[in-house]
Amino acid sequence: MQTVDTLIHARWIIPVNPQRDVLVDHSLAIQEGRIVAILPSAEARAQYQSDNVQDLGDQALIPGLINAHGHAAMALFRGLADDLELMTWLNDHIWPAEGAWVNDEFVADGTELAIAEMLRSGTTTFADNYFFVDSAASTVVKTGVRAQFSFSVIDFPTNWAKTPDEHIDLGMALVEKYKGNEHLKIMFGPHAPYTCSDEPLTRIRDLAKEHQLRIQMHVHETQSEVDGEVDKRGGRPVRRLKELGLLNSDFQAVHMTALNADDIDDIVETGTHIIHCPESNLKLASGFCPVHELQQRGVNVALGTDGAASNNDLDMISEMRTAAILAKAVGQSATALPAYEALAMATYNGALAMGWDKEIGSLEVGKQADITAIRLNDLESQPMYDPVSHLVYATSRDQVSNVWVGGKQLLKDRELTTIDKAAVMAKAAVWQERILSK
Amino acid sequence: MQTVDTLIHARWIIPVNPQRDVLVDHSLAIQEGRIVAILPSAEARAQYQSDNVQDLGDQALIPGLINAHGHAAMALFRGLADDLELMTWLNDHIWPAEGAWVNDEFVADGTELAIAEMLRSGTTTFADNYFFVDSAASTVVKTGVRAQFSFSVIDFPTNWAKTPDEHIDLGMALVEKYKGNEHLKIMFGPHAPYTCSDEPLTRIRDLAKEHQLRIQMHVHETQSEVDGEVDKRGGRPVRRLKELGLLNSDFQAVHMTALNADDIDDIVETGTHIIHCPESNLKLASGFCPVHELQQRGVNVALGTDGAASNNDLDMISEMRTAAILAKAVGQSATALPAYEALAMATYNGALAMGWDKEIGSLEVGKQADITAIRLNDLESQPMYDPVSHLVYATSRDQVSNVWVGGKQLLKDRELTTIDKAAVMAKAAVWQERILSK
Repeated sequence: MQTVDTLIHARWIIPVNPQRDVLVDHSLAIQEGRIVAILPSAEARAQYQSDNVQDLGDQALIPGLINAHGHAAMALFRGLADDLELMTWLNDHIWPAEGAWVNDEFVADGTELAIAEMLRSGTTTFADNYFFVDSAASTVVKTGVRAQFSFSVIDFPTNWAKTPDEHIDLGMALVEKYKGNEHLKIMFGPHAPYTCSDEPLTRIRDLAKEHQLRIQMHVHETQSEVDGEVDKRGGRPVRRLKELGLLNSDFQAVHMTALNADDIDDIVETGTHIIHCPESNLKLASGFCPVHELQQRGVNVALGTDGAASNNDLDMISEMRTAAILAKAVGQSATALPAYEALAMATYNGALAMGWDKEIGSLEVGKQADITAIRLNDLESQPMYDPVSHLVYATSRDQVSNVWVGGKQLLKDRELTTIDKAAVMAKAAVWQERILSK
Repeated sequence: MQTVDTLIHARWIIPVNPQRDVLVDHSLAIQEGRIVAILPSAEARAQYQSDNVQDLGDQALIPGLINAHGHAAMALFRGLADDLELMTWLNDHIWPAEGAWVNDEFVADGTELAIAEMLRSGTTTFADNYFFVDSAASTVVKTGVRAQFSFSVIDFPTNWAKTPDEHIDLGMALVEKYKGNEHLKIMFGPHAPYTCSDEPLTRIRDLAKEHQLRIQMHVHETQSEVDGEVDKRGGRPVRRLKELGLLNSDFQAVHMTALNADDIDDIVETGTHIIHCPESNLKLASGFCPVHELQQRGVNVALGTDGAASNNDLDMISEMRTAAILAKAVGQSATALPAYEALAMATYNGALAMGWDKEIGSLEVGKQADITAIRLNDLESQPMYDPVSHLVYATSRDQVSNVWVGGKQLLKDRELTTIDKAAVMAKAAVWQERILSK
């Protein structure tokens, strides 16, 4: 008998491996934070012992969900302003609120609220594009999840820094500070083509190459953004980024609606990753990302919720479902983005976009034990013909039962182990009072 | 002090009344199954007493959700076949499965499973379009919910009846049998323009007029349906139905994608109700219903989940959210279908389509006490700026806590009071084994 730190028996393991397996009555062994075995439960019971054996009958283990785009701290603005045109929403509500409130304390409290919500809905790694990154990074380290921080760079002054160069300098200091931390990746987050001029983008390109850092950027969020850029600069945003030398397999382009054939050719040719945020795109009437066509062309498409101010949740279970059904309608084929591929979009594809695919994104021996367990034993999951179908098309976030990151259990029977839920809610209530009183 | 059967105190009451009120710290009094008062809780505590006082702090009361289109018994086919083209899905999977399995027992068991799921997600009234209606109706009566049954009529033989006339005769006998039952409306459900010839439709039109019965029909589910009808009959389905004299304010047209300007004019002119099923339309790549344009033209648009074989749940909370965000993208305006109107679509608009608006669909004095309570006190609902925004954009089905129909509590702290959940699940497991063994 071999002794391991943790041994989990489950009715199903959906590893999101290249073979797209669905393993029935299998077990997963964890040692020093990594997966050391995945095998039939009968064999696991004979070969492994552990002080921490978890028998999750009628649950499915999937890779921890990877939320590939968001603004975590904006959870504190959830529901503050809805049902407004994008530029009205930004100019009259979100940007003034950010100007009034966003600081280190806001980011720490908002990020913790977001992480709590994400863990309770099965997300183990998230991408964050915001300000005051040090506060957010400290919160990530404290809570034990993983995050990719693409620190914001933008032409105009923010609460965090006055110039694009100041934003970059603050961010690069954090790259140094957190170098080697297995839970964090810190890289560039230039806001969008229409808010970033060539000079900072060129500096970002060179620094990214020098330090081997990735870039995440909002690109083609709306048709009017594209039209505005064509009017202003005489060309389409995707082509401009390509000509600036930014597009390659280290670049994550978020949203990507209003794509024409040239845009898609540029994406394919450069190996650019796409981060799809379907619920935010729908809610803000931004447009439709042609996911089916992009996937047919071999483009890697990952999935994100965007911030809770525009979604209004950080629930990757429902986002995965929305992505799966929307891709069919937009692609005009009910065979587009089948269930298993939607699950891959919410897990492995995110890891691939982040350059984290050697460590996370699938349940395979040698990888980090980032795992989400989902109950499929209640009425809403009956009858059971296909667990992957149910995971994508008939599961809600409350069915997430247990979550591990690097082998450490961060959610246990729906209780957060590293976050004081009552304290997080009390802090949210304080911010609510402050923001409403203004 | 006045004594009432039930007195409910809640943090919010969202009555979906014409004024679109949001009432804070209000109470609702129920006597003999009907709402007799809605007033501030401080006044309610002074004026009313009851043996059944329920203090629902941090919960919102809304009208019971009305699922305006579905095939309840198909819950037993949930997840049986996904990610397939509509006609492949129908011809190779759903219709053969129906041929093999659908009978009185299947419909009773499947309908009970569906009702259990619907109650747990806040639905109190559902529209059902299926076969073996007597079994389904008995299940409705037994469980205490409400339903509109549009019994199927179709040109080809089914397990239920051999000819369109036999379908009609079976249905009309049930109209007689259940006449006067406050929980049931039984009316016509001709399947679709492409499966119903003029003769049964003409008979249905005349019987509907004679007996003052409504009609629900799948219309314009896909562009290819429309194209096929234009090829076959030389005209568009909506126009054919209008010329047959079917379209009026007693007609519920389900799906309604691929509409052109003439179709919309016909709908507006005749006062036809639209039943929108966004998640089914997306998942089957059926197309997009132009909800925003229809609402701007004054058309009543209600909401349905469709059957669990094509959705794959009967969750009106998520359907309402999908409807709200999809309408914005399709209508190209983030101001389309704002949160309160999405809630109305899921409640009052359904009652109006069914001709049930004098009794249900809103929380108003004199109406039936069909009420859903939703918890808004957990982490996912923080901070709280606007309860209606949270209900539509940030709530999941597990937050449904309590449900009443006609003043009788059918869900109490998430426990079903009229349905044996374990028995329903055991029956679903039996069907699962049977269907998988084939």
